[in-house]
Amino acid sequence: MMSRWKPDAAGRLAKAALTLFEEQGYAATTVDEIAAAAGLTKRTFFRHFANKREVLFSGSSDLQRLFLDAVVGAPATAGPIDAVAAAFAPVGQMFAGRQPFARIRAQVIAANPELQERELIKLDTLTAALAGALRERGVPEDEALLAAETGVRVFHVAFARWIAQDDPEAFERLMREALQQLRQLVA
Amino acid sequence: MMSRWKPDAAGRLAKAALTLFEEQGYAATTVDEIAAAAGLTKRTFFRHFANKREVLFSGSSDLQRLFLDAVVGAPATAGPIDAVAAAFAPVGQMFAGRQPFARIRAQVIAANPELQERELIKLDTLTAALAGALRERGVPEDEALLAAETGVRVFHVAFARWIAQDDPEAFERLMREALQQLRQLVA
Repeated sequence: MMSRWKPDAAGRLAKAALTLFEEQGYAATTVDEIAAAAGLTKRTFFRHFANKREVLFSGSSDLQRLFLDAVVGAPATAGPIDAVAAAFAPVGQMFAGRQPFARIRAQVIAANPELQERELIKLDTLTAALAGALRERGVPEDEALLAAETGVRVFHVAFARWIAQDDPEAFERLMREALQQLRQLVA
Repeated sequence: MMSRWKPDAAGRLAKAALTLFEEQGYAATTVDEIAAAAGLTKRTFFRHFANKREVLFSGSSDLQRLFLDAVVGAPATAGPIDAVAAAFAPVGQMFAGRQPFARIRAQVIAANPELQERELIKLDTLTAALAGALRERGVPEDEALLAAETGVRVFHVAFARWIAQDDPEAFERLMREALQQLRQLVA
């Protein structure tokens, strides 16, 4: 049952944080301000996020879970790239409602080297997890890492395209198109 | 003309640093120790490297230069991936004499999250530079980024394979094989 007086505290905090990051910059924004803007306490903030940086990375574990579930659930006959691409539909759906957040987030990250590092680590962690899931399917180690790297890079390139255009539902299609473009590039 | 009394100070410092990193760990090693082990002063160390971390990344600019020169120098008819792959021969040659260094370096980096971050940034910087060089060739922006990401990931995967096997001259071949494997994976 949802709390009567504080529905979706994490969501409210994230929205307040992104608004403040956009308005006054990431460095200048404090956890106190974020909590106040969300009408919540600092203590509530720290129940949901380790620090202000993690507000921007709270979706990472959901994203990784969607990729891993897709790889684990793909038909046994699916090749490694098809197993990774099985995540494109659920990942596209996950992001469809988050385009405004994703755009501000991308701007904030682009302006802060510390956040860029964290973003690179997120992608690297996702790559390692995906490679592990592919090995679990019996994909040889060499192929698993290459397929995981490829899948994550397709995701990453398509993500930049998705926030640069206006259709929030387009992310799945943009990932498929980027993979198709990669096929043509290496053909 | 080479200095009579201190030939290749940078090389001696790098070798001393890697030996110490391997023997006693990266964190426990000081610049004083590195300089002493190389028979040089701390001041000489800082003429060549900003800090002990940068000893591990001093080859980054050479690597990037080789990739960019290859892309710039590739025939006008070469597609984006072929332009990037034109770097495989010179990059393989650059590394051929450095396998012992590269192996210790990889171990040190694997054991230190701070260094892993720096390594991710190095690869990301290389990707951005390569994408820029491809755009200069008239490759459309979307394709340039995807080709650069692909080239750097092929380099990265092949690098791990190269240090895991014993032929120092094999790096170029391993990059070509990884690209071929990627072709088959996405076909």
